[in-house]
Amino acid sequence: MMTSDGIRDKGGIVLIGAGNLAVNLGLALHRKGYSVRQVYSRTEEAARTLAERLSADHTTSPEQICDDAGLYIVALKDSVLTELIPQITAGRPDALFVHTAGSMPMDVWAGHARRYGVFYPMQTFSKARPTDFGGIPVFVEANGADDLSLLRSLAQDLSGRVYVFSSEQRRLLHLAGVFACNFTNHLYAITEELLAAHGIPFEVMLPLIDETAAKVHGLSPREAQTGPAVRYDLNVIGKHLDLLADRPEMQQLYRLLSESIHRISENN
Amino acid sequence: MMTSDGIRDKGGIVLIGAGNLAVNLGLALHRKGYSVRQVYSRTEEAARTLAERLSADHTTSPEQICDDAGLYIVALKDSVLTELIPQITAGRPDALFVHTAGSMPMDVWAGHARRYGVFYPMQTFSKARPTDFGGIPVFVEANGADDLSLLRSLAQDLSGRVYVFSSEQRRLLHLAGVFACNFTNHLYAITEELLAAHGIPFEVMLPLIDETAAKVHGLSPREAQTGPAVRYDLNVIGKHLDLLADRPEMQQLYRLLSESIHRISENN
Repeated sequence: MMTSDGIRDKGGIVLIGAGNLAVNLGLALHRKGYSVRQVYSRTEEAARTLAERLSADHTTSPEQICDDAGLYIVALKDSVLTELIPQITAGRPDALFVHTAGSMPMDVWAGHARRYGVFYPMQTFSKARPTDFGGIPVFVEANGADDLSLLRSLAQDLSGRVYVFSSEQRRLLHLAGVFACNFTNHLYAITEELLAAHGIPFEVMLPLIDETAAKVHGLSPREAQTGPAVRYDLNVIGKHLDLLADRPEMQQLYRLLSESIHRISENN
Repeated sequence: MMTSDGIRDKGGIVLIGAGNLAVNLGLALHRKGYSVRQVYSRTEEAARTLAERLSADHTTSPEQICDDAGLYIVALKDSVLTELIPQITAGRPDALFVHTAGSMPMDVWAGHARRYGVFYPMQTFSKARPTDFGGIPVFVEANGADDLSLLRSLAQDLSGRVYVFSSEQRRLLHLAGVFACNFTNHLYAITEELLAAHGIPFEVMLPLIDETAAKVHGLSPREAQTGPAVRYDLNVIGKHLDLLADRPEMQQLYRLLSESIHRISENN
């Protein structure tokens, strides 16, 4: 059985991409002693900055991606990934290729590479905020049993939560993550905007935000629900809709979310 | 200047209501050595259970609410509050009355009582989950300076975050809290439902939920945003909408929230 030492021995890692995920994953690998040899990005500045932090080379030209790495980790926007796959794989018949996209099936590699898989750390990464990789769930998949073992070992070196998931499961996971993270964060943004319009600092909301997240560690979200919509308090709901009269987009969201909460609670 | 000792000395506290907020507030007062003398609730079981935990009397009849308490804390649904105010205030000209409702103006008391105010702890309370009151923001308001000092001292005995807010500000705060808490929790509920339909446990999402909340302690929500909507990745968005084809309500929410994220990010 191969282990992640296979990657350490066999030519190190090339990181293709220098966005939020690539930066955080690259730094985590570097901290764990993996050799990230080269960083590719279309943006010179991004490639160089990340490469320097990883003591790696960098390039902005796909032709100059080095040929003899053991593992190519491709962390790009989906459309760019699809476009670059033929170039990245050409002339590298023995290398292992993975992408990091929750929404892309593993078989985007099929027909281009012999050994391939997926390495999907599910987290919201920002360059401005360093991430502790230890608690991040990592979902791996590979087209061969040895490479699956290898990716799993690599993931286990970085995180205590490693799962083998199919492309089908991961696709669903990614969709659910948009609700749990991106849409939730957008509700925080709406909150901030509402408060700012009345000179109230966003910080007053942090204890409520924290408790809302902490609560669902112990209670299911349905059990944890409180507030006017689940009580079906039409008096309060009506007042809130009035307050949003000059913000039709927020008003529509308020109405839709309240109706949805009420429907779910009735089905309990 | 009066302090919260005024409440300890002057006949103690009557708690009107035995719901999620009343239970958590009652227990916090009890732990801090305040005498909660009596609990009123329309529901015998709820009144008795809470009264026992507070070593208090209980009643289900508004006529039997004791006359000589120093402070009456009314933690009821808005519609019930309005209905009960005349009964609660009648024959108690010297008592101080507060309600705990974010959405109700202070002046619901006007014409019924001489001394009144608001004591609004902004948190999502569930009976099943005991709350540490220490970090909860408490917003107070009163119609007299002495009573404002008294309520502020009481709040400071329970929490390190006490604010004097007007009814107008609190109304906005309550609306913003619905977005930050109730609607956020509903997104968690949708997440759970999507995952459950594919046999994936909700727990895998907790690190993402926690980090999404933790991030906005340091970054503003707009800066913290990630994912397909802010990247305007129409490829991923289209796939997600397809995945939700048999769930029109979630699909509508997905579309609306994504459009809203995109619009906000363009205005940056």
